[in-house]
Formats: sequence, C-alpha cells, structure tokens
Amino acid sequence: MTRKLGVCYYPEHWPEDQWPRDAARMKDAGLTLVRIGEFAWSRLEPSPGDLRFDWLDRAISVLAEAGLEVVLGTPTATPPRWMLDRHPDMLAVDARGQPRKFGSRRHYCFSHPGYRAEAARIARLLGERYGRDPRIVAWQIDNEYGCHDTTLSYSDAARHGFRDWLAQRYQSTDALNRAWGNVFWSMAYDRFDQIDLPNLTVTEPNPAHALAFRRYASDMVVAFNRAQVAALRPLTDAPLIHNYMGRVTEFDHHAVGADLDIASWDSYPMGFLLDRVEAPADHKAAYLRQGDPDFQAFHHDLYRGVGRDGRWWIMEQQPGPVNWAPWNPAPLPGMVRLWSHEAFAHGAEAVCFFRWRQAPFAQEQMHAGLLRPDDSPAPGLEEAAALAADLPRLPDVSPSRAPVALVFDYPSQWAWEVQPQGADFDYFALCFAMYRGLRKLGLSVDILPADPARLAGHDLILVPGLLHLSADMTAYLATTQAQVLVGPRAGSKTPEMSIALPLGPNLQGLDATVTHVETLPPGAERALQRGGAAERWIEAVETRAEILEETTEGAPVLIRTGRQHYLAAWPDPEAMGRILRDLCSRAGIQTTDMPEGVRQRVHGHHKLVVNYSSEMRVFENDALPPAGLVWKLIP
Amino acid sequence: MTRKLGVCYYPEHWPEDQWPRDAARMKDAGLTLVRIGEFAWSRLEPSPGDLRFDWLDRAISVLAEAGLEVVLGTPTATPPRWMLDRHPDMLAVDARGQPRKFGSRRHYCFSHPGYRAEAARIARLLGERYGRDPRIVAWQIDNEYGCHDTTLSYSDAARHGFRDWLAQRYQSTDALNRAWGNVFWSMAYDRFDQIDLPNLTVTEPNPAHALAFRRYASDMVVAFNRAQVAALRPLTDAPLIHNYMGRVTEFDHHAVGADLDIASWDSYPMGFLLDRVEAPADHKAAYLRQGDPDFQAFHHDLYRGVGRDGRWWIMEQQPGPVNWAPWNPAPLPGMVRLWSHEAFAHGAEAVCFFRWRQAPFAQEQMHAGLLRPDDSPAPGLEEAAALAADLPRLPDVSPSRAPVALVFDYPSQWAWEVQPQGADFDYFALCFAMYRGLRKLGLSVDILPADPARLAGHDLILVPGLLHLSADMTAYLATTQAQVLVGPRAGSKTPEMSIALPLGPNLQGLDATVTHVETLPPGAERALQRGGAAERWIEAVETRAEILEETTEGAPVLIRTGRQHYLAAWPDPEAMGRILRDLCSRAGIQTTDMPEGVRQRVHGHHKLVVNYSSEMRVFENDALPPAGLVWKLIP
Amino acid sequence: MTRKLGVCYYPEHWPEDQWPRDAARMKDAGLTLVRIGEFAWSRLEPSPGDLRFDWLDRAISVLAEAGLEVVLGTPTATPPRWMLDRHPDMLAVDARGQPRKFGSRRHYCFSHPGYRAEAARIARLLGERYGRDPRIVAWQIDNEYGCHDTTLSYSDAARHGFRDWLAQRYQSTDALNRAWGNVFWSMAYDRFDQIDLPNLTVTEPNPAHALAFRRYASDMVVAFNRAQVAALRPLTDAPLIHNYMGRVTEFDHHAVGADLDIASWDSYPMGFLLDRVEAPADHKAAYLRQGDPDFQAFHHDLYRGVGRDGRWWIMEQQPGPVNWAPWNPAPLPGMVRLWSHEAFAHGAEAVCFFRWRQAPFAQEQMHAGLLRPDDSPAPGLEEAAALAADLPRLPDVSPSRAPVALVFDYPSQWAWEVQPQGADFDYFALCFAMYRGLRKLGLSVDILPADPARLAGHDLILVPGLLHLSADMTAYLATTQAQVLVGPRAGSKTPEMSIALPLGPNLQGLDATVTHVETLPPGAERALQRGGAAERWIEAVETRAEILEETTEGAPVLIRTGRQHYLAAWPDPEAMGRILRDLCSRAGIQTTDMPEGVRQRVHGHHKLVVNYSSEMRVFENDALPPAGLVWKLIP
Repeated sequence: MTRKLGVCYYPEHWPEDQWPRDAARMKDAGLTLVRIGEFAWSRLEPSPGDLRFDWLDRAISVLAEAGLEVVLGTPTATPPRWMLDRHPDMLAVDARGQPRKFGSRRHYCFSHPGYRAEAARIARLLGERYGRDPRIVAWQIDNEYGCHDTTLSYSDAARHGFRDWLAQRYQSTDALNRAWGNVFWSMAYDRFDQIDLPNLTVTEPNPAHALAFRRYASDMVVAFNRAQVAALRPLTDAPLIHNYMGRVTEFDHHAVGADLDIASWDSYPMGFLLDRVEAPADHKAAYLRQGDPDFQAFHHDLYRGVGRDGRWWIMEQQPGPVNWAPWNPAPLPGMVRLWSHEAFAHGAEAVCFFRWRQAPFAQEQMHAGLLRPDDSPAPGLEEAAALAADLPRLPDVSPSRAPVALVFDYPSQWAWEVQPQGADFDYFALCFAMYRGLRKLGLSVDILPADPARLAGHDLILVPGLLHLSADMTAYLATTQAQVLVGPRAGSKTPEMSIALPLGPNLQGLDATVTHVETLPPGAERALQRGGAAERWIEAVETRAEILEETTEGAPVLIRTGRQHYLAAWPDPEAMGRILRDLCSRAGIQTTDMPEGVRQRVHGHHKLVVNYSSEMRVFENDALPPAGLVWKLIP
Repeated sequence: MTRKLGVCYYPEHWPEDQWPRDAARMKDAGLTLVRIGEFAWSRLEPSPGDLRFDWLDRAISVLAEAGLEVVLGTPTATPPRWMLDRHPDMLAVDARGQPRKFGSRRHYCFSHPGYRAEAARIARLLGERYGRDPRIVAWQIDNEYGCHDTTLSYSDAARHGFRDWLAQRYQSTDALNRAWGNVFWSMAYDRFDQIDLPNLTVTEPNPAHALAFRRYASDMVVAFNRAQVAALRPLTDAPLIHNYMGRVTEFDHHAVGADLDIASWDSYPMGFLLDRVEAPADHKAAYLRQGDPDFQAFHHDLYRGVGRDGRWWIMEQQPGPVNWAPWNPAPLPGMVRLWSHEAFAHGAEAVCFFRWRQAPFAQEQMHAGLLRPDDSPAPGLEEAAALAADLPRLPDVSPSRAPVALVFDYPSQWAWEVQPQGADFDYFALCFAMYRGLRKLGLSVDILPADPARLAGHDLILVPGLLHLSADMTAYLATTQAQVLVGPRAGSKTPEMSIALPLGPNLQGLDATVTHVETLPPGAERALQRGGAAERWIEAVETRAEILEETTEGAPVLIRTGRQHYLAAWPDPEAMGRILRDLCSRAGIQTTDMPEGVRQRVHGHHKLVVNYSSEMRVFENDALPPAGLVWKLIP
Repeated sequence: MTRKLGVCYYPEHWPEDQWPRDAARMKDAGLTLVRIGEFAWSRLEPSPGDLRFDWLDRAISVLAEAGLEVVLGTPTATPPRWMLDRHPDMLAVDARGQPRKFGSRRHYCFSHPGYRAEAARIARLLGERYGRDPRIVAWQIDNEYGCHDTTLSYSDAARHGFRDWLAQRYQSTDALNRAWGNVFWSMAYDRFDQIDLPNLTVTEPNPAHALAFRRYASDMVVAFNRAQVAALRPLTDAPLIHNYMGRVTEFDHHAVGADLDIASWDSYPMGFLLDRVEAPADHKAAYLRQGDPDFQAFHHDLYRGVGRDGRWWIMEQQPGPVNWAPWNPAPLPGMVRLWSHEAFAHGAEAVCFFRWRQAPFAQEQMHAGLLRPDDSPAPGLEEAAALAADLPRLPDVSPSRAPVALVFDYPSQWAWEVQPQGADFDYFALCFAMYRGLRKLGLSVDILPADPARLAGHDLILVPGLLHLSADMTAYLATTQAQVLVGPRAGSKTPEMSIALPLGPNLQGLDATVTHVETLPPGAERALQRGGAAERWIEAVETRAEILEETTEGAPVLIRTGRQHYLAAWPDPEAMGRILRDLCSRAGIQTTDMPEGVRQRVHGHHKLVVNYSSEMRVFENDALPPAGLVWKLIP
C-alpha cells in the first residue's frame, strides 16, 4: 500500500501569485496530496448561475504542475448568502424552535429538498468540469456532516419529511400506533399529518417516536449525501470520500459510507480530549498535550470499518493548537508525528494536515497550520517533513483482520440517548470503555457494524449494548467459532423501542433472562467477588448458565454457555480488564499488559508501539520518551 | 377503619382475553381495589363525539366479577390528538413563550376555557354512565395536577384570564397600582389589558405582580378541578379523589382538596430521593435504595390535612425501580412493604400499587409493575401479597390528632420563590427541615393549612415562614394553650407582598421587630451559643422578650413571651433538634431520640417503628434489620 | 475640593406631607445632595403629553428649602406603559430572539429611533423647566446604562441600525468582505441588507462580525446618551452625569463619558463580591461582609479616568444589605464609612447613599436604606452621620496623577469575549489581576483609555491585553520616559479582529514575535524559574531581547529592551507580584507589601489606609480593627 501525506489548502484565501510558492513548499515538505475547494462556493458561484471556475482551473494547474495530487471538495457545507434568498426556509431549526442563522457554516437542514437539489447541482457542475481530470485523484463530498449539532433539525421541512417517512415505514397510522404503543397516554394518531417532531413535549415523548425521528434524521444525511454521489458517479472514476468527525454519532456512518469509496475523518486529539472524551480530570490532565491514548485509535478502527474494503484516510490532522476546545494548549513535540504514525499503523492510506497556512482572519484564525500566518514555518511543518522522511521506511500494514471485533451500532446510540435510564449511561462511552480495556491489553481491534457478514474471521466478538439482536445475529453468535461477549443491555428491545418479549437477551443456547435493571449513581458501585465493581448499570438475570463473575451479594454479572457469554453490568476498569483478559485467554488471543500511556497496534509481523504519556516508558526493552514510537518486528 | 390494597390497571393496554386472568391474579394477591381509565380518552372517544364505552363496560364487569372494586379516572390529563384540532390554542406555553407540544401528557393550559369545558363534558358523560354504578367505589379526577411543571402557563388564555382575575381582585388599576407599588419604576397601568404575564421581563418583575400570577395560576387549577366536580357531583355518591404528587407546590392543594372527598398521593420514595429531596450527598447515598426516611411521612401528614375529614389514600405506590429519576436502582427487599405499612400508620385508607404489569412500550416501559412485562411476578408482587396478609393484623390507627401541628401554606411557597433573598431559601425546605427535626425526636405531626380553626387540640404549633399572619391567626396564637413557634420570616409581609408595617412578626403579646435580614451562603453560618448554628437566613430582632437562643455574637435567635416563641433564623440540624426538644419539654410532649434512619408513628396506644437504614438497628429492645418494621403497643 | 454627601430620594413614593420631615432629617444627618426623579416618568407624564411637573416643583422646593441641593434625573430608564402603545417594537430582544417585556425597567432597545426621540423629548421638557433653576446642581441622564444585560439587543431596530452602521463604516460590501475575511466559509455579502445580527448562528459567527456588532451596540448607547445631552446642553449650565455600574463593560464608558461632565458610579461592594468578582471561594468567604478589597478602588480609578478632568462621584453607595446578590448578608459595622472614605481618597467629589428610606413595596423592598421601611434609622444612617462629621477633617486629595497608569480599553473586552481562546481568558479579569497586584504593593493607579495623550506623567505604564496597538501608541510607548509593560495578548490583532501581520506585538525597538499561543486549564500552569507560574494564557515568543522571566522549560515570559517590557503570559499572583515589584524598582516607584486585606491610597502628602479584613491588622504602627481606617501624613 502506498501511503501519502497531504494538506488542506484554500487558494481562494491567498493572492494568486502566492500559489506557486505554496505548492513548491508543500512538495518540498514531502506532501503529495492537497485538498481544496470545500468551502469555496461563494467564489465558484458568486451569484446564482454565475459560475467562476477559472480561478479553480488555475489553482489546480499550479498545484498539479508542482507535482501535487488534488482532492476536490464539493462546497455544500457553506451555501452562499444568496442561497437563502432562493430558499428562505432552508435553515435548520433548533430544538427550541429557533432557525439557525447564516453567518458561519452548515446552515442548512438535511431535510430541505430545495437545498438538496442545489447541492446536487453544484456537485454535478463540478463533476462535469473536473470529473475526468486526472489531476483530481479523489472527491470529498461536503464537510463534516453533523458537526455543530446539525443532524437534528426541527424545521417545517423536517416535519413534512418525517411524516412522509413515517407513512412509508408504517403504511397506516394504526400500524404506527400499535408499533409505538400510543394507547399508553391516548397518543394515537388518525392521520400522518397530525404527527409532529418530538421536541418541546410536556414531558418526554414516546421513546419510539423519538427513536423514529432519530432514524429519520440519519436517513436524511444519507439521502443528502446520496444526491451528490448520484450527481458525481456518472462523471468520475475517482473515489468519493467524506470526512467524518470524532464522536459524531447522530447519523449512521455505515449507511453513509455504503455510498462512498473511502472513509476519512478529521483527527484533533487535543481538541477532542477536553471536548469529547469522557474521562476523569486526572486522566485529562495527564494527556493534556498528547490527546487521549485510545480516542484516535477508536476512530481509526471505526472508520476503517466504515470505508469500503477498509479504505480510510485522515483528511484533517491537527498540526498544533486549535481554537475550539475549552482550552487549547500546544501538542508536546513529536505528537504530530506520533498521531500520524498511529494512523498509518491502523491502515490509513493518507494523512492530510489541516491546514497549510494559518488564516489570519475569520473563525479559525487561532487554529494552527503548518505555516504561521506570517508564512514562516510552524512547528507542525518540521514534524510533517520528518514524517515524510519516515514514510518509505514504514512496514506494509495494509488492513488485516484484527483478532477482536467490537460491534458499534449507531441506532443503539440513539436509542440509549432517548432512554438512558441512568444519567451516565451512554452507548459510545460503553463501547469506548470496552475498547480502552482491549487496548490496555495490547490488542488490535476491528470496529464493525451489527452485520454478521462482517464478523467472520475474528477470535473474539464483543457486542455491548446492542439495541436489538436480530435473528441473523443470534444465529451467527450461536454458531461462530469465536468467543462471544454480549451485553450489557444488548438485545433488550425490539427495533421499535419496546421491551423485547421474551425478555432479552434471547441468545440461542444461553439461558438468560434479564428481569429488570438498576442504574447506579457514582458512589453506588456494586463490588464483584473477584475484584473491581459494576458501575452505572446492572441487570438482574435469571439463568442456569455457568456464572463466571458475580457481585459480592451473589448476583450474576458474567455468565456463559459454550463460547457465548452474557455480561449483565457495566464493569469498572479493573473488572473490565479481567473479564477481557479471561475472554482472550479462552479465545487463544495473547494479551500484553501495556504500561500506562503506551499502546501498540499489530499487523501481521509488524507492530507500532507509541508512548502517549509525558514520561519515559520502557516497554519490551525499548525506552520510549514522551511522544516516542517504535516500529517492531514481531518475533 | 378498613384498609385496602389496590393496583392501577390499564385494560386498554392488553388483549381483552387477558383481563379475566389479570383480575383473578389481583384478587389472589389480596388486592381489592383497581384504578382504571385515567389515560384512556382516545379509546373512550376516538373521534369527537364518537363514544366507545363498551370496552370499559366489559372491563368493569370482568374486574367486578372477580371481586374487585373499581376506581374510575377521568381521562383529562391526556386529551386525544383531535382535541388540538378543536382547540389549537389549548396548549400550555412555557416561560420562554414556546407552546408545549402534543406527544406525551398534560398538554393543556389550565386557563383555557374551551378545554375546561371539554374536560367537564367527558366527566359528565362518564358520570352519566357510571355515576350510580355500585361497582365504581370512587372517582379519580384527572391525574397528578401540576406534574411536569404544568401549573404555570404563559399562554394567551392565561394572559386573558389573568387580566380578568386582576380586574375582579382589584376592581381598578389605581387600586392595583397602589397595592403593587407600581410607582416604583413607573410601572403603573391604566387599563387591565395592558398587564402582561410576568415572564421575560428585563430584570425581575414586581414581586407583587409575580405573586398575583402565582395565585391566579393556582386558582385555575382549582377551577379546572371544580368544573369536573360540578359535572360529577349530581351524578354520583362515590367519593371524588385526586392523586397529588410529591413536592408539587405550584397550586394550593388545600383549595383543590376542599372540593373533593379524599386526598390521595403518588408515592415514589426512590424517585423522589434523587429528584426532589434536598439533602447532602452522603444522606442520599445512605438511603439510595430506601428513599428518604421523612419525605413520604411528610406527604402522608400533609395530604391527611388536605383530605376532607383527614381521609387519604396512596393512589400510586412505587413497587420497584422507576424510570424517571436521574438514576433508578431497585428498592431493598422489604421496602415496598415498609412504605405501605408506614402509609397505613399515618392513616391511609388504601394503598394502590402503580402498576399491575410493566408495559413493554411507550414512556414508562422501564417502570416496574407488580408483574414483569413477560407476565411473570416481579419482586413487588410478593411484597404486596405479604402486605395483604399483614393487613388483618394491623391495629386500628384511624387518624387521631398528633401532638404537634406544622402549618404549611402554599402562597408562602410562591412568595419565597418569587423573593428568596438568598439562593437557598426555600419554604418547603424550611418546613421539611422542621418536620425532619420533629421526626428525629420520635414525634407524630399534623401538617395543616394556615387556618386557626384547624389548629385546635395540638400541644405545639409551628408556623415557619408564613408569608402573612392574619389578625385571626395572631389572635389565635396569642390565646391558644399550645406552645407556639413562629418564624423565621413569618408575618413579614402583607398579602400583597409588601413588607408588613409595623415590621413583622407583629405577634400579640410578644415584643419583637425584625429590622432587617441577612442571607448566608454555605460556609457563613453563624454559631449559636448553645451549639449548632444559624444557616441560610438570620434576622436582626429588636426585642424585650426573653432570649432563649442567641448567636455567639449575642444576636437573639429564639425569643419568647409566655407560650409564644419567635425564631429569627434557620437553625442547622443540631440547633433545630435542641430548639424542638426544648419546646416539646415546655409543651409536655415526650420526645425520643430516634437512631439514624429509624422512625416511628404513634396513634393512640399503638405505634409503628420502621428502619429506613441499610443496617441493623436496635430500638427499644427490638432489633430491626434493614427495611424492618414492628407494630407495638405503647405501654 | 469640597466633598459632599448625598442620598437618593423618591418623593413620588411617599405622601407629600412626609417630604419636609424627610428633608429635615437628611440635613440633620449631614447630607447636602439629594438625587430625585430618575424613575418618575409615569408620574411626570401619566399619559402622552399630559405633563404633571407640579409635584416635582413642590418636591424641589421642599428639599431646597431644607438646604439640600438637587440632582435631577431624566426618567428614561423607565418608560411608562403607554410608551409601548406608541412604539410597540421598542423593546430590546434577547439573544434567543425573544422580546424582553414591560414590567421592570430598562425595557428599551438603544437602537430604536422612536424611543430615542421620546427620551430626548422628556429630557428637553425637563431642561426647559429646570435647566436654569439654581436649586438643580446637576443632572443625571438615564440610570445605569447596560444594567440587566441591556446593551446588546437583537431587535429589528438593531438589525436595521447595524446595517446602516456597517454601510457607513465600510462603504461597500466588498470592503466589508475583505475586512472580515468573509471568503473563509463563503460568508460574503452582496448587499448590506443581507447582513444579520450575529446571534443564533450554527457555530460561532465570524469574530470580525461579532466585534463589529459589539462596537455598533456600544455606539448606540453613546448615541442614546448624546441625544439627551443635545437636548439638555442648551438649557442648562449644570453638569451632566451618568451613573455607571460595576463591571459593566458592554459599552465604551470613555466614549459615553466624553459627552458628559462628571462620571459617577453605583458602588455595591457586597453585591459585587458574590455576583461579579472573580475570586476563589475562600477569598469570597473572607470578605463576605466587607466586599473585595480592590474591586471598588478599581472602579474609582476607572471612572476618574472616564470623568472630564477626573471629576467623579459615587451616585449610589450601598448602605446595608441589598436584595440582588445570590446571598445578601449585612456589612460589618464600619464598612459603609470605610467605603465612603475610600471613595474620597480616590478623588470622589460626592458620595450619595442609595436610598433614603427602604421601600416596603416592589422590586427592591429587601434593599436597605438609611431609614428602615418603618421610618426608624437603619444602621447605615449612623455611619452616614459619622461620615458627615469626618468630612471637614479630611485632607485635600484633589485628583493627582498616580505613579502607575493601567490602560483599560472596552473594545479589547469585547474582542476577547468574542474570542477567548481559553475558557477563563477574560480581559477585565486580566486587568483586575494586574490592578490587584499593584494594590498589594501599596500603589496608587490611574486607569486610562488607550490614548497616548492621557498617559503622560506616569512612571510606569501597563498595557495588558490591548487588542490593537496603534501607530501612535507604539510610538508613544517607545519614547516615553516611563517604564512600560505590554502584554500578554496586546497588539495581537488588527482593529478588524484579524491577526496582526507582522505578528504582534510590533513594539518599536523591542524584538519580539508571538508565533503562537497556548491556553491552559486549571492545573496546567507552567512554572516559572523565579517562582510562581504562568496560568490561563502563555505565548511562544521569538526574541533577541533580554529575558527577565522564563518558564522552567526555558520559554521566555518577560522580556525587555530599554524601558519597554513585553509580558508573554498571564502571571499567577506570586509571579505578578514579583514582576510588578521589579518594574516599580526600575521605575523608581517605592512599593510597600500590604498586609492581607489592608490597602492604601496615596495623594501628595496624605494617604488613607483601610482594613478590609475581618481581623485586626497592624500596619506602620497603626492597629486597624476590622473596617478600620486611618488618614496619614506621608513623612
């Protein structure tokens, strides 16, 4: 596999005579990819129909002539101001009923058919002009779907779209009333046009109503993306890409990804640490200038599963301090290189830095680039260049199957947001806790959708918190040769957000009935006999299966029959480590206790070891300074 | 007195062929009451005027044939969707001006005359059909008034209603301007239709304006309830009941209760602990699976005072984990039985469990019932059955007068919400702190409105924080043979929310003038000479009365002349205990220092002792395990 | 200089026959000024055009006959209810788009031309009647501009006004687009009427857009004030005053002050401590009944710089507990006197107490006055009288130049609110931290706008966080004979809120380039080699200048060339103290380590020493009890 480095560039931000020098310096730094265009709509079409592609032609020429390959973005995340004159109702509406204004980006509602057509139109126009241009090696569609909480919109367009979507899904309001249990509080509907969006209700809306809206909202992202795919596909053979964000879970990335060729994501380890990682304060303090040691890897493994054939990129890599976290310190020297190596070790084809030169104006003026605003090199440039020099020496780590598969299912995230039952029950946090536990044991992981066809070939399959266990899934889990861990909360519901009957988890061959659940506030953990505790969530289970873990009061927490295990609680880190270690042992997977902050990623006969901590660590005879890394042959 | 057990049941949720088996199992469990119908409007009248009472006829028959007595609810807490087509402006509007949507329950504004008429209509229709039906032993009107913050609505209907209410109260805007002191900031009105609701003002509205709105909003609940009472009274002789909630203080329960026959309330000890009890974190941790040891008793005693002739029920008793608190653990084994015994000890005529079978669908699917969603017995069923077996052995504890009366006045709650003066000054919390202090001394308490006619026959009368001391009240307090404790903050205002002149408390025969007050943030408590401290609130008092308690700096905190005492501060628990003990001693009331978590309720020659703690406690030679209880003869 | 004491009085609140007695008691207490009229519009003009000045004539007569001088307020902070009938759209609109209702005060939008004309009209009418009346010694225009967050309004009037303001500032949208960098996210405008207010955007608006709106909003306050000044100036020779509030920074006080004669402010030390001072909890606890030891002095020095020729007053002085802080304890005995002495020591011409008699009604009924609501003396009256007795003995401390100048610039406050980059970066807090550091060294300070012409004659000039260093300013700083400290974050931007190029600070003669910045959460401070640490904010600096302070890792934190210093971080208190002490030493300014809570203010040969602490302090052989003060000759 060829690995590439690249950078995000905005020719429209700079005088045209600066472009050649910029291109040459990119090339000198060892960068070969350059992403352009994704926010440039107002320059491409300053007024409706007035297309100005000439500057883009020239920019592409300058870049290509310098030996750079171009990734061209569709500019649909930033509709120009005139678009609002054409579609005054295109804005998303917040949960309080207020339209979200023009003046930044992503100011559109995914449900709005008029804007969707405009997005397809500009994509088609770009495709017509550049689709067969060999200098364009890939396309990025839109930018960071869902960022700034833009998936959920309570607009009129969303209301109408939701009603149509419901009519198609349920065919009759009787069916919908039955599926949702609307008899409960006299909530029955007679006509689909009586159904409103589930915001601003007096108390919580019917969770089935809320989950349906979440499914609908996700489908609108899929449809919006698909409209542009449909416009571009006939016009180009270059791969289509979207750049996802970290911990954006409001739409189903697997569904969007199914229409694309390559998944990419925008990796901001330090911004994420303070803004999106759930961890104790001392953990955040320890990794303040490095980012969480598992958060990036989680997304690498997640998006490898989203990309077709496992193809994925980092489209934006943080190169220095950013502007959007509560606090924004600078990365420790070496971290930019470390993050990039780690991405390659997880199978990335490309890592692009965001951005080439720090813009001295507008919203992101405090966001570092590889160059400073005054055109001097920023610290990131040196690390990028060092990385470019590293690239040829990297071992081939084309995506191979990891021993462990972790199922991640977007509808489950929505369902448990709708109905957490305990204030700190969060599906992402549960999956991430399990993932962190695996990483601390030195394991490599594939994060995959709830699709049995994707799970084959792993030695250990983990299915925490899956809303609904389909018949296909239970059949697969009962027959796979892998060790299987299901739960907590998995299989507890129907797809319509009712309690499953018979009561879950309904695994084939494993006798277990979850009769009721308890949620536990901090400080009310239930100790386990073998050490550690259950926290946040614990289930009462009736079972005749073998009990592997139980509370000190004798409540079963981990049971098994054959290869199938059911986990009836959220284990704290100590218990999680033990449970995973035991499972690996049963699955014949070798584990390694990683020192604090040290992580590894294995591919075939190679592995990368990285030190996220701010202290020297010794691991397998290698002394790793902070931000240190080593590629090793596995003996 | 006959005590009854019952259950809440929703025949409309289940197939009709399941009803007979359900009824038989209820009967087997020793339940004799069953409440039905209160959310069934969409099944009773699926479209306007299309009445379908046949299924209800059949349900009543099935239940009655099994030997169960039926409590029939009016379904007005859940208007069907078609009601909004008839009355599009019937929705309550939140304080930010946003209508609260259909999709859950209680989606109506108490001020809306159209909906009020609809509610009276359905009540009348039900009354006409079932009013003389001997199988219907009682009626429940609506459900949990005020729940989900529904008392205060900022709708057009409320605005118009408020203006009419003001016109009736004040007759002229001149009178209103004078009463409110509108000269203060040029806030005078010329016409009643200039007066708006007191939300969204630039800074705080005139407290007199705010309090008037709170009085108005409460009156609307009274009027809404009265419309149904008026419809039902001519049609039935069965008692009319409403089921109040815990710590809902936005309307005057005494005023609503005056139109009804029996007060009932919905007791969710564990939900309340995390959601509505003000207590330190360690206290909440200690009672996580039991509920607060005083919160239920407070409401038992409060609603006994609301019910006509002291008649009251538990209409909904938590039987296991609920779904609506921040976290929802399961009760300790035995607590369901303990809570019910305690209710009977406080004089309840009936305890009904909510609900029979856990619904697998809609908003409350995670709320336990006596049966699991799969029809198997849930843990609560066994405790209910044990309770049924206990019932015949219970001593007769028909409501008798307690030695202590605690005045609880809803307008005072509103007034101090409008004007707390210190961020943690809350009237309910003040009354509850006093109540808890009494309970820790083993005392039984009557909680009563600020009506001298209700106070006779007690040995100790406590009047904390009463907004206004009427002439009747001061005359009564000066002449009663009881020991009297007034304050803090009692008698400090006129009924129009001005400062009383002469300055309060204006007790007859007790020389005391509160010249100014101070509010104290946590950490700024003022130590008392005899131990403990004043917290939150302390008054400067000019007095020639006897000083019983003072701060270490010599400021009087408790003064008395004869039987009348004035308390000029909010005592911390230590000081509260001492002050109450001394008062009891003076009143000739015997006190008992209860062990932590142990409480008792005395009636005549019997008392119930309960252990709310999670540890074994020994009290009067009885060893009480967690959730343990004992009925004892008082020697 | 003659110093005066006064009081705020509301004749319209009291029966007319009470006025003479009130006036006589004021006089007896030693008060000579009385402010009236500023909330009385509804009494002056009960309906449009129906002027009723007769009562005001009589009130002025009564007061003047008692020997009191009158300060007359224009009543424009409290438009009567009928004003809304004439101008239904005059209300300010909050950031969520909701109009803010009638029912308290300040219910107007500064942008509304109709209301501005009404304000000018009533000012003119008052001026015509009283402008040449010798009994009126000064005028107060409006009341507490900006209080209750009223400077920023998102009304239609504001939107239209903002567009006109932008058109005047930028002349063309092309110029605006360039200035703001609107190319960034396709945010370009074609017409000024496309530009909206920067609220409710999907993510943050362009900071240039946001800052422009903040400038506009401030200009609207200036224009509103100027309209009244324009009405009054031709009609009176008495000085025009506005009473500013503490830590209200949403409009440019220097710009408003330029149209007025005297600055005044409303000093509520205890309300401010809990509500507006940023300080650790233990600090707040220590000064709970005294107020922060530096917050009042900061505003004294700030408003002395706002007043023409340094003229300033306290228009409202807290005389006891107030009603509006989260908690409201009473001041320690002596504090009212201490606060007033301190104001005089900082050059105040007058101190007026708010208010004469506590009103028993309306919003401020819990706000102490010099009299209680029952007409008895409140504790403040005795302190006011003691103060009156002190006055003749006070040394003359007419404003003299302090050795230290601290630049305070309102646009910098707005800019860093728009773009804090770290959650705790606040411009006021930075300036206040520096001010506190100076006060702890016993220094007297002038707080001045960013105008070189104002800085002459100081020995030390501090310029923290100034958004933009103008050419005039850098020229001045390079040539002044004073020691100069610039930074952190000073000179980092253009006036249009872009990053300055070349990168800041661009001081003449001091080689320093801030290449990037880091913000630091609590716990991530960077230790300095000489002790203490950098907190919140630290810059990476390239420099060949002398390094005076650096982190333990060797990053420069304080550099200098000649007299100019650049500070590249926010120093913690320890480091701040050392840095300031060293600077003073270099500037030949003598410093004194003040005991905790003790402060001094020097003028010529006199100084006032005050003890804000709640314990006895000894300073220079004087034993100062809590609230103690001493005026001393400087040897």
